[in-house]
Amino acid sequence: MPSTAGPVRADVEDAARWLSGRVIRTPVLRSPAIDLLAGSRVLLKAENLQTGGSYKMRGALRAVGRLAAAGHTGVIAQSTGNHAIAVALAARQHGLAATVVLPVDAAATKVDRAGAAGARVVFAGTGLDERVAMAYALRDQTGHPVVDAYDHADVIAGQGSASLELIEQAERAGTPLDALVVPVGGGGGVAGACLAAAGTGITVYGVEPVGCDSLARSLSAGERIPVPPAATIADGLRPSCVGELPFAILRNALRGVVRVDDEQIAAAFRLLLMELKVLVEPSGAAGLAGALRLREERAGGALGERTVGVVLTGGNVEAELAARLTAPRLAELTTVEGAAA
Amino acid sequence: MPSTAGPVRADVEDAARWLSGRVIRTPVLRSPAIDLLAGSRVLLKAENLQTGGSYKMRGALRAVGRLAAAGHTGVIAQSTGNHAIAVALAARQHGLAATVVLPVDAAATKVDRAGAAGARVVFAGTGLDERVAMAYALRDQTGHPVVDAYDHADVIAGQGSASLELIEQAERAGTPLDALVVPVGGGGGVAGACLAAAGTGITVYGVEPVGCDSLARSLSAGERIPVPPAATIADGLRPSCVGELPFAILRNALRGVVRVDDEQIAAAFRLLLMELKVLVEPSGAAGLAGALRLREERAGGALGERTVGVVLTGGNVEAELAARLTAPRLAELTTVEGAAA
Repeated sequence: MPSTAGPVRADVEDAARWLSGRVIRTPVLRSPAIDLLAGSRVLLKAENLQTGGSYKMRGALRAVGRLAAAGHTGVIAQSTGNHAIAVALAARQHGLAATVVLPVDAAATKVDRAGAAGARVVFAGTGLDERVAMAYALRDQTGHPVVDAYDHADVIAGQGSASLELIEQAERAGTPLDALVVPVGGGGGVAGACLAAAGTGITVYGVEPVGCDSLARSLSAGERIPVPPAATIADGLRPSCVGELPFAILRNALRGVVRVDDEQIAAAFRLLLMELKVLVEPSGAAGLAGALRLREERAGGALGERTVGVVLTGGNVEAELAARLTAPRLAELTTVEGAAA
Repeated sequence: MPSTAGPVRADVEDAARWLSGRVIRTPVLRSPAIDLLAGSRVLLKAENLQTGGSYKMRGALRAVGRLAAAGHTGVIAQSTGNHAIAVALAARQHGLAATVVLPVDAAATKVDRAGAAGARVVFAGTGLDERVAMAYALRDQTGHPVVDAYDHADVIAGQGSASLELIEQAERAGTPLDALVVPVGGGGGVAGACLAAAGTGITVYGVEPVGCDSLARSLSAGERIPVPPAATIADGLRPSCVGELPFAILRNALRGVVRVDDEQIAAAFRLLLMELKVLVEPSGAAGLAGALRLREERAGGALGERTVGVVLTGGNVEAELAARLTAPRLAELTTVEGAAA
């Protein structure tokens, strides 16, 4: 039940102003090694260093803040992790009760973080449909509104403030962006990026994991096409369909979608960790993987950007997965041992 | 052959002004989970995000910059890694030739980085004495000056600028520091911190690995005491003796030294990675390990600081060690497999 009023650039600017001082103005990082690989200047917006460990905090805080101002006393959210954590933290900050609906197979750290933020955690199945049904059942029981993870104007505007900040930081550094690359789950963040870039001449690209390319297929088809999500290490990019509100924005504003596979995401994860010294979850590293793929495609003549901004959307990853991605050889040995046992 | 003129606070201020725009003004990071564990507000200065991956860049750039201004055409440095990389990068920036002396067992990434920065890499033994002898032999051959890793006024002043920035950033954030905690190798960085804190009322603590406590023993004895360094994962904190210039500063200005073991360093590494989302090498994580130990000692009545600054000195760590520290269980399995093979 998404809100139907589509947000515009002014909403992102309003959200950015309101969020200023409420969220961390995350740094923009650079690495000569990454510039060399990308064949362009790459500015990386470290939203993994954001409160709650992801840029979802911006959208959640904006949405919950407006609901609190409107007199609501509680909120409900469903997600595979980061959005639920963000809504829980935002609700606590505004003194609202939060109920978050997670899949039964949610990452343990994400369950812990939502609980630590004071939210009531409800588990519902493994798929989006089950979580959404549970969220709306809880809404009917309690009267509290559901804050959708991407089909929500305030969430899109709030998440877009990360891109707006990056655009401003790049300008101030004397290296204004030519392009902006953002990973795509339900499409809220990349829709916000398109709004932030509107009228600036900056081209915006989305990045989807291979086999989780609902947005790419929807853009080709001219209508929203659900895709049963394939397995990917980028667990945050697996919604089966791009959201309605995001799609309405993206179909007119997005330059294109780059598809990346797990190997490319893992390589980007390692680059970010070993060269940039930051921990970015695979879903966040997908943005850099996409920017590196843009170089290859550019050889075909499509692109010529000199300064590329990438939003590193989050850093919430299980320790064991992080270790496996950091040293694949170590993980291989372990797998052999596990198989032998 | 250290320079004998001891630096003072004004030298740190001069270095900070000169370095402004030449090095990254690294962000100060915070984590509610770390505050809770430390029992105080902990501000972490992320020098792992510095150019070259460590705050050694500040001292190297300051020292090499002055040598270039004085007409030198080349420089020589010896270290187990970070200082050599920093001098190589600084020399390239100033158009000087660099020769760096590394131990034969230097970490592969550190050798690669020094080479990538355009330095001639010379290997000499495994101990400090062999590297120092080689460095001065090369000086006699080439006429180029040796930039000592810590017994050098410009290196101390340059490294101290990280602490000065942290002190300023904390003030601007409305959370001025009560204490400052810095890991100790040869003592250059912590000596610079003492100079930066002079006259501010901020108490400064050093952190040494257990068994690598030349500074703690030297402070007790009132003179420099060499200590054959014990094994530790903090490879940057293993010089056998605190430097002469640093000791002259530290004996009057340092509040005390906290000793930390590998387990405490590994726990701090994991906290920084999983909560703060940054990769910090064990030598850098030792600073946070020390800050967490201060809490325990405070129970004894010695300390009562509310806001503690910690310099995360660097982030250059081998991928495999990083993976092992991130997920000890994964590493254990691997060890079992290795033993069985």
